[in-house]
Amino acid sequence: MYYLAIRQFARTLNNLDTILGKATSYAESRKFDANNYCSERLFPDMLPLANQVRIATDMAKAAAANLGGKEAPKFEDNEKTVEELRARVRRCISFLEGFSAADFEKVNAKTVIKIPFPQGKALHADEYLLGRQIPNFFFHVTTAYNLLRKGGVDIGKLDFIGPLELLDA
Amino acid sequence: MYYLAIRQFARTLNNLDTILGKATSYAESRKFDANNYCSERLFPDMLPLANQVRIATDMAKAAAANLGGKEAPKFEDNEKTVEELRARVRRCISFLEGFSAADFEKVNAKTVIKIPFPQGKALHADEYLLGRQIPNFFFHVTTAYNLLRKGGVDIGKLDFIGPLELLDA
Repeated sequence: MYYLAIRQFARTLNNLDTILGKATSYAESRKFDANNYCSERLFPDMLPLANQVRIATDMAKAAAANLGGKEAPKFEDNEKTVEELRARVRRCISFLEGFSAADFEKVNAKTVIKIPFPQGKALHADEYLLGRQIPNFFFHVTTAYNLLRKGGVDIGKLDFIGPLELLDA
Repeated sequence: MYYLAIRQFARTLNNLDTILGKATSYAESRKFDANNYCSERLFPDMLPLANQVRIATDMAKAAAANLGGKEAPKFEDNEKTVEELRARVRRCISFLEGFSAADFEKVNAKTVIKIPFPQGKALHADEYLLGRQIPNFFFHVTTAYNLLRKGGVDIGKLDFIGPLELLDA
């Protein structure tokens, strides 16, 4: 499960990268600066797009690092343009794609994983992945999507879901 | 994994129920009809809150039914009030809570699950859960959250995530 969840994070981030590309194309077609999206918020006291993308990638790379036993790359949190956000997303995808199923063989339901908040607390691996990382990850990718969707970008849920490995029924 | 994912859907729907309750309280405090939220949209061609809640529950119950081998309850898709949406959410939670880990023992990575769209197609169980049901489920719960958040309701991400089974690190 752990490996497949990390693989899904990479796929969803790939969809996010495409969505961010569509934001740039839309801005070009309307002749405004696509980077205006970086500071857009759904509501004044919510985090802007840049932070939504940052937190989504942070959730994915922390999950991979903690469950798969590799050190995560550090991101500087200083992205100011859509292209810089896309570069971060792609760096995160590269990190996630460096894992194979074998990397997760040492983890099991009893593995304890420290979390940054609340301080001094930890979760069992399944709770960490299913209760914390997956909901947080999709929360922030969806909020990024909603921000761009509300900001006029021509995207639909299929862009968010991406291609599936369909079989004939 | 299958059982834990279904259990997580139930937990997240429980959080959604609480969030919908906060929407009602907020509307009462501002003396407007909470049911106005049901038709609210983030953007004019997006689905309104009622549909976001409906699809989230549909994704969860279909996953449980298809992976756990029980028939899902039918919902009439006619909810017009926040209370009716909350009743739907709670009916879905009851259905999900009727499963135990043993119900998912017959499913494995090669199990083929038919999907409603595209017609005539299916997915392997892992792809169905991780690539389709989980992303769709969190997409719609998050969009419901964002709609209410943007609509003034005093909620934060902790309401969305809910309580975790914390350990001392």
